[in-house]
Amino acid sequence: MPQDVRFDLPFDTPVSEHLEYARKRHLRWVRDRGLVRSEAGFDEYRSWDLPGAAARTYPYASAEDLVVLMNWFSLAFLFDDQFDAARPDRADRIAEVAGELIVTPLRPAGTPPRVVCPITLAWAEVWEHLSAGMSLTWQSRFAASWGRFLVAHCEEVDLAARGLAGTLGPREYAAFRRRTVGIHHSIDAGERSRGFEVPPQAMAHPLMERMRDLAADTIGFMNDIHSFERERRRGDGHNLIAVLHRERGCSWQEAADEAYRMTTDRLGEYLELEARVPRMCDELGLDERERAEVGMGVEAIRHWINGNYEWALTTGRYAAAKEGPVATAELAGRGSVDDLLTV
Amino acid sequence: MPQDVRFDLPFDTPVSEHLEYARKRHLRWVRDRGLVRSEAGFDEYRSWDLPGAAARTYPYASAEDLVVLMNWFSLAFLFDDQFDAARPDRADRIAEVAGELIVTPLRPAGTPPRVVCPITLAWAEVWEHLSAGMSLTWQSRFAASWGRFLVAHCEEVDLAARGLAGTLGPREYAAFRRRTVGIHHSIDAGERSRGFEVPPQAMAHPLMERMRDLAADTIGFMNDIHSFERERRRGDGHNLIAVLHRERGCSWQEAADEAYRMTTDRLGEYLELEARVPRMCDELGLDERERAEVGMGVEAIRHWINGNYEWALTTGRYAAAKEGPVATAELAGRGSVDDLLTV
Repeated sequence: MPQDVRFDLPFDTPVSEHLEYARKRHLRWVRDRGLVRSEAGFDEYRSWDLPGAAARTYPYASAEDLVVLMNWFSLAFLFDDQFDAARPDRADRIAEVAGELIVTPLRPAGTPPRVVCPITLAWAEVWEHLSAGMSLTWQSRFAASWGRFLVAHCEEVDLAARGLAGTLGPREYAAFRRRTVGIHHSIDAGERSRGFEVPPQAMAHPLMERMRDLAADTIGFMNDIHSFERERRRGDGHNLIAVLHRERGCSWQEAADEAYRMTTDRLGEYLELEARVPRMCDELGLDERERAEVGMGVEAIRHWINGNYEWALTTGRYAAAKEGPVATAELAGRGSVDDLLTV
Repeated sequence: MPQDVRFDLPFDTPVSEHLEYARKRHLRWVRDRGLVRSEAGFDEYRSWDLPGAAARTYPYASAEDLVVLMNWFSLAFLFDDQFDAARPDRADRIAEVAGELIVTPLRPAGTPPRVVCPITLAWAEVWEHLSAGMSLTWQSRFAASWGRFLVAHCEEVDLAARGLAGTLGPREYAAFRRRTVGIHHSIDAGERSRGFEVPPQAMAHPLMERMRDLAADTIGFMNDIHSFERERRRGDGHNLIAVLHRERGCSWQEAADEAYRMTTDRLGEYLELEARVPRMCDELGLDERERAEVGMGVEAIRHWINGNYEWALTTGRYAAAKEGPVATAELAGRGSVDDLLTV
């Protein structure tokens, strides 16, 4: 299957002008913090172009903030790859580290982690910067979104450790994918990146909640399509195409076509709801400033849908054909060449 | 020092009419769920009268809900006592169980716990009931409040395990106490108990945030005064009177007097802010229904301040003089006669 499957998105989004400046500083940081340890790991990491993802999903972040957002991406993506199918006991260490990542935003910013490894140290440092200036309400929302994602990730790892990764039906999978894709907290971070907050009554409105869920579904399904070959190589059954292929007993191409249709359905529903936002603002009696904040909140969702899409078309992370130590590790069921869960 | 130190509270609050019905069902539940295992543990547990605390802090809960709220109290209070000074490695198990308690509200309700013991099983059951019918916004707020409390509890246990429990200065202690007292999530549960939610924009207002913090301080300091003898017996330095006694080099009576003054100061400031709530409602442009919800939110805080106070005057948990197996366990540095962190 090709990586660069195209979708027809009816909006465009900008790319940060600080991309190259921030990329340089970020690449130094990931090595300094021991997040990438081997040369093979560094080559692979650079090929992913996470700076390009951050510059598209947070296009209005300051240069300094963009470096921190890239740093955050690195620890989240690298943590995502730490499972090793040959060592199912590794699931316990992943749960322990995830628990630490979950509680970091629930402690006073700057508190050192209790469970120490490169991932947790990096996150404590990133969170101190990421939380700066944000309200308690935003911090609680972010902490809950982030915690839901990490606990879902642990469930995914536990299923893999028990050899049950590919056993969910399509409906069950879609509900689970919404939790594992990690979009809610990613959109929350959009507010921090641009120095604003969506008014709490708008954020609590069913329309906004549904839009966030649909954005998560759209991005999760797109991701499954773009990363399909990587996940097949890794033997990872947590992928919509794989689920449809197995459950419907259809060909890979038919499964991919169905996944594509499901993705455009979610995107279509999202766009319909977006059109109702002005009416929601009327209903809530929002003033001009609050309406502008809601508008920026919707833009934060668009930045994620389109920014992630553009990045996914070319990132080396999802490359269909891969050789060398990383591909060898993946084929052997190891998620990564570097172990980041030990000191 | 006497347990029944009186405060002059300028408001009264009701007691649930379902107290005795719910108490009976609750006491059966704690034994059924293995939360109280020995006869000595059951006698001690009954003497605490947690049903009396729940009936005062959630006076408007339905009979069924009140049973669940009592069940919740039991697991929270019993977990609080699981540290054993003679086994500092126990701190790691407490952190592991706390991590599980933190993630329970971040999973779909009804998911079985990953870390299994009587406390985590009980909480998964309680949360399924406690979260029913509440919005995502409330659930995120509760999860963050609850998580902040539990991670602070782990920090308290870690200090005790390192023999550093009594080393904080008064200012540092007061900030820490606000986190360990566990009032924010307790007030959040007041909304569930009465089937309403405070409008999110009011909950996010600095006035409401400050009132919640001041209520937490007031209740935490009162608790330190009422439970002083229990904590002295247990060698627990996490107590305002103990901190003042040590830091100021004053007598126990002078420390108790100063703690009393600090408590009434916080209460006084809380009451001043309460008077400003109608102005906040004007500022936010709330309608009649929303104003009523804010009013019930303020009542939920009052129920906690006064309900907890009335309960603390007589609960066997804080009895100054105690004999038998529980006192022996406490004097030996064990928090409880029953181990609830193993299956």
